[in-house]
Amino acid sequence: MTPPPPLRAVDWQSDGTGLPFPGAVRIIDQTRLPGELVFLELRTVDAVEEAIRSLRVRGAPAIGIAAAYGVLTAMPPEASGEDITPRVLAAADQLATSRPTAVNLFYALDRMRLAARTVSSLHPLEQGFALLSEARAIREEDEAQCRAIGRHGLSLLDGARTILTHCNAGGLATSAYGTALAPVYLAREEGRPLAVIADETRPLLQGARLTTWELQQAGIEVTLICDNMAAQVMNEGRVDAVLVGADRIAANGDTANKIGTYGLSILARAHQIPFYVLAPTPTFDPDLPTGASIPIEQRGAEEVTCGFGICTAPAQVAVYNPAFDVTPAGYIDAIVCERGVLRPPYEPAIAGALERTSS
Amino acid sequence: MTPPPPLRAVDWQSDGTGLPFPGAVRIIDQTRLPGELVFLELRTVDAVEEAIRSLRVRGAPAIGIAAAYGVLTAMPPEASGEDITPRVLAAADQLATSRPTAVNLFYALDRMRLAARTVSSLHPLEQGFALLSEARAIREEDEAQCRAIGRHGLSLLDGARTILTHCNAGGLATSAYGTALAPVYLAREEGRPLAVIADETRPLLQGARLTTWELQQAGIEVTLICDNMAAQVMNEGRVDAVLVGADRIAANGDTANKIGTYGLSILARAHQIPFYVLAPTPTFDPDLPTGASIPIEQRGAEEVTCGFGICTAPAQVAVYNPAFDVTPAGYIDAIVCERGVLRPPYEPAIAGALERTSS
Repeated sequence: MTPPPPLRAVDWQSDGTGLPFPGAVRIIDQTRLPGELVFLELRTVDAVEEAIRSLRVRGAPAIGIAAAYGVLTAMPPEASGEDITPRVLAAADQLATSRPTAVNLFYALDRMRLAARTVSSLHPLEQGFALLSEARAIREEDEAQCRAIGRHGLSLLDGARTILTHCNAGGLATSAYGTALAPVYLAREEGRPLAVIADETRPLLQGARLTTWELQQAGIEVTLICDNMAAQVMNEGRVDAVLVGADRIAANGDTANKIGTYGLSILARAHQIPFYVLAPTPTFDPDLPTGASIPIEQRGAEEVTCGFGICTAPAQVAVYNPAFDVTPAGYIDAIVCERGVLRPPYEPAIAGALERTSS
Repeated sequence: MTPPPPLRAVDWQSDGTGLPFPGAVRIIDQTRLPGELVFLELRTVDAVEEAIRSLRVRGAPAIGIAAAYGVLTAMPPEASGEDITPRVLAAADQLATSRPTAVNLFYALDRMRLAARTVSSLHPLEQGFALLSEARAIREEDEAQCRAIGRHGLSLLDGARTILTHCNAGGLATSAYGTALAPVYLAREEGRPLAVIADETRPLLQGARLTTWELQQAGIEVTLICDNMAAQVMNEGRVDAVLVGADRIAANGDTANKIGTYGLSILARAHQIPFYVLAPTPTFDPDLPTGASIPIEQRGAEEVTCGFGICTAPAQVAVYNPAFDVTPAGYIDAIVCERGVLRPPYEPAIAGALERTSS
């Protein structure tokens, strides 16, 4: 049986007038999963910004793709002859405020800004085509990067039967395949399935809601645990490797990812289980020497106290809710990007990978 | 201002006929907190068993006290002249099946069985008085033990400002004061308050629902975090010590406690933060040489997938849900019991503490 095609969590959908625009950013509303599979059509920059901010679309690469398409919603509804560059640049500025930690967002918007400036002297319709083409290129590059990450990641998993992952770095978080889950999807395509243990990932339960859902859709064996059970399943010998995604990777390999990743890296090391970060090169931020300067988004108390319809903590209790943490490079056994497997020391390895990318 | 008296989570309540029985085990229904403060009167062995099994009363010492009082509900409603010993022994056997991991349950029931056999030749009413007296002694000893644990624990916290705790090892889990939280209550009585960071403790959120609630009641500063944030707050230098309770401690110091404790001990060690277990001597199980033979209760998937009214994972997803884990003695910097502070090597230290207890 051929595995089902990977889901497309983010796409551009034209209104069917023959031209690609006007149109909408079509996303799966990830806040509704796993209860309901709801697609949203986002027709304005405000709607795209809200969807990113409220995690309807999430995962560093998917956020980048949604933002890239998102600037296209700023185009005027009719071909008015007006230069669309100022609108596109304003949209990019607005979308850049939606989430602070993932660098892919800024990378994608920078590419869209550059594309907008490059074509600003052309006919508005041509500008639109060029921008759509750039957004599609970002998505297609991500898909190719994810497949390459999967291939390189799989080379680290000879003999592995079960991997543990945190949050959702799967198809829903990217264009397809995912990053941390890409080796799992590729292993299935190759007929040697890996099983997955999924941390539920409090407070927003991306692991429970999204990772288990998308793996079930693909027919991959998955077991859900609470975050605080990871050490126990490691100690029981149930985990052959830990695979996580990344929201931003500093020049020295320090990696920002979903809160809980840092602790997991310590637990993996204590159990001598390899800990791998899988992310495309747009996740690297060579301008940041170390993870110390990665901005960490703090989110509201109600995510922890009243996340799922009923309140499970006393009113007014103080809550600390960082959305991300930074795993020091020293706890990471390899960083897998589309260019290959990077090993410590990461500074030259990352610089080399970026050089190859830009050349 | 005098701090409020500690809550009494478990007590015996007579029906007010002048005699202490018939009566009921009066508990706070901890499954209803923090939304509602509901007291239950449990009048049958079945009701007590159900309350323990479904965690309406929980925490190793509180379970022991509830079970000790629980056997009294087996007494016939009227003084019939019938020897009550067989009923009491049958009740003890039934209650012993309610939870497998905490040893205090078996300790309390063994004392009740012994008391029942000792007085089996007496008048049934005298038997009843003797048994009630024994159950009260178990509760009073626990309260005295908790206070002593608090005093000894506080001696380890000179200069500490904030402790991190997991699950609920506070007043709700014991007769009063708690074990892990006893130093916090005593510090407050002494006018040098400690602040608490409370792990929410998935899946049943005892930290979010119970620890924050009882500390708020007592006017103690508490901040709630998700379990997967513990490493981050440690790394930020916010934690001076980790204090946890215990459900069973083997002869070598290996400690069973709420799932997540083991991982926390690894994280504390990685951040050079002292990790202390606080528990009364009935928690020690000298018959178990190591933690490897402590039975670990596995609980249902729905606690993880649908714990709070709505389901947050796909139907039929596989779930692994151990209720406890075992922290190896090597990760524990001290075990605090009512007899003092035990330091490694724990085998002779625990044997010595138990000798002093029984002498």
